[in-house]
Amino acid sequence: MTGVEEKRFREQLQSRVEAIEAVIRRYLPEEKGYQRTVLEAMNYSILAGGKRLRPMLMQETYRLFGGRTCLVEPFMAAIEMIHTYSLVHDDLPAMDNDEYRRGRKTTHIVYGEAMAILAGDGLLNYAFETALKAYGLVDVSEKDIPRTYQAIGRALQILAAKAGVYGMIGGQTADIEAEKCGQVSKERLLFIHEKKTAALIQASMMTGAVLAGAGEEELAAVEKCAYDIGVAFQIQDDILDVVGDSVILGKPTGSDEKNHKQTYVSLNGIEQSKEEVRRLSGEAVGILDRLEEGRERSGEFPFDREYLRQLVLMLVDRRN
Amino acid sequence: MTGVEEKRFREQLQSRVEAIEAVIRRYLPEEKGYQRTVLEAMNYSILAGGKRLRPMLMQETYRLFGGRTCLVEPFMAAIEMIHTYSLVHDDLPAMDNDEYRRGRKTTHIVYGEAMAILAGDGLLNYAFETALKAYGLVDVSEKDIPRTYQAIGRALQILAAKAGVYGMIGGQTADIEAEKCGQVSKERLLFIHEKKTAALIQASMMTGAVLAGAGEEELAAVEKCAYDIGVAFQIQDDILDVVGDSVILGKPTGSDEKNHKQTYVSLNGIEQSKEEVRRLSGEAVGILDRLEEGRERSGEFPFDREYLRQLVLMLVDRRN
Repeated sequence: MTGVEEKRFREQLQSRVEAIEAVIRRYLPEEKGYQRTVLEAMNYSILAGGKRLRPMLMQETYRLFGGRTCLVEPFMAAIEMIHTYSLVHDDLPAMDNDEYRRGRKTTHIVYGEAMAILAGDGLLNYAFETALKAYGLVDVSEKDIPRTYQAIGRALQILAAKAGVYGMIGGQTADIEAEKCGQVSKERLLFIHEKKTAALIQASMMTGAVLAGAGEEELAAVEKCAYDIGVAFQIQDDILDVVGDSVILGKPTGSDEKNHKQTYVSLNGIEQSKEEVRRLSGEAVGILDRLEEGRERSGEFPFDREYLRQLVLMLVDRRN
Repeated sequence: MTGVEEKRFREQLQSRVEAIEAVIRRYLPEEKGYQRTVLEAMNYSILAGGKRLRPMLMQETYRLFGGRTCLVEPFMAAIEMIHTYSLVHDDLPAMDNDEYRRGRKTTHIVYGEAMAILAGDGLLNYAFETALKAYGLVDVSEKDIPRTYQAIGRALQILAAKAGVYGMIGGQTADIEAEKCGQVSKERLLFIHEKKTAALIQASMMTGAVLAGAGEEELAAVEKCAYDIGVAFQIQDDILDVVGDSVILGKPTGSDEKNHKQTYVSLNGIEQSKEEVRRLSGEAVGILDRLEEGRERSGEFPFDREYLRQLVLMLVDRRN
């Protein structure tokens, strides 16, 4: 990107993040009642300042497929709640045992371990309560109500499947097992990257697509594109840990090696890793191109092809 | 109940438990793949031999309202998964710290704390994946497909709401806070009993009702009936801890007092507690009577009014 393009992209990114933040806040629970503390802990966790990539990818994919209404918004809030709960539980003493996340105290340090467990449970459950609110947003003037109801049902299935034991939780499990036994095959590592990282990106993009009317064939293409983005992102993570500039990264490099953690780089080498990132991101962008060719764009809410492409490339090409 | 009635009831109970066990097993995940361990831990937790009261109440209420198909079965499995995950997380060291449950080692003792946290998360998530399978059970020959889809959507909303921060998790939170600060008002205690115990009974019975076609007015009556059953059950629990026969209970009495735990009995006295159990169970049975009067019964799958009444009375009158 040129300097001008970079500046424009950053402005668009910032504007979207602010809009998404407003959507999320609209769906957060009010902190009152005898159960007030868990509601506070949930809000503390989710308002810890994330990049909001998953709801952003969901919204852009929704727009790519012609979506224009607020139907996608409960799902945007829901995916961020699911992402957040996984971090809260991940940080627990029995898991990764982290006292800080992004420079802020983790939830169990502030509220205690019991409340952090419940806050995670609360966020996961509330994600489904929130997504289900989409049923209440279907306008009586909607052209095809049964079809919209079906799309919401399909979106719920995708969200649940990708978050669960055949998605993210499955990846967490395999990751813990891999850490315990030390050695990990290339297949197992790819499974972990697919489930632990790509699954929620797949959930985000597929949900956006189906709510805007995408069919099963298009959904399969979106699933592949999101897989590529997620795995490329994770491999880039592994690369940066070895060769990244620790100043830009904001943290020391070499932590994976120090922890004897097997990564894509340690298993495949730095050159093959970089090549795979290029291949995957190229494939992802190619799928987006094909999907965009195949769609009518409404003049009213023009879909910004350039923004989504730049977003994807920023994720995989990043230096931090 | 007479001796003959008691014997017949026990046989019917046993037969239903076995049928419900078969339904649950049909929806449990196969233990394979890189994430095998969390699947094993989930199955270990749920196959620990529960009384299956929640799916049983769901099924009986479904039948009360004329339900005859397998549509209720994914929800029966789902409510038991939700009940189970709450026990797994409740037993964790940071929570109640229990090494045994019903004479069996708890999940974190067998699989480690990290895997128990994930197994709980997995069960909660999988409960929603499972309930969503109801959409796939709607027969193409179904008289009113949109109406059935709406009923499933409503059932999902109820399940999620009663399991979450405005239901069960809300009750767990208030319970933990109450233990921390020692004193608890009558209102807070009732909140805890309502949310921690009655909420999932409400979810069970309301879900069964709505899937069989109950309208909002009937749902409200079922919600009240289930509230009464749940709170009466919990007060009976408190009573038995004080005056129960430890031989019949299978555990020593007086544990609440020893733990300085405020209960309905310590706040209201034993006589008022017994009176409240009578009042609540009488009200619950009265509501069931009125709902049954209002329903047509299909000759094909006769609804057993007597069984449901005996089940409810057994719950609240029990000695253990």
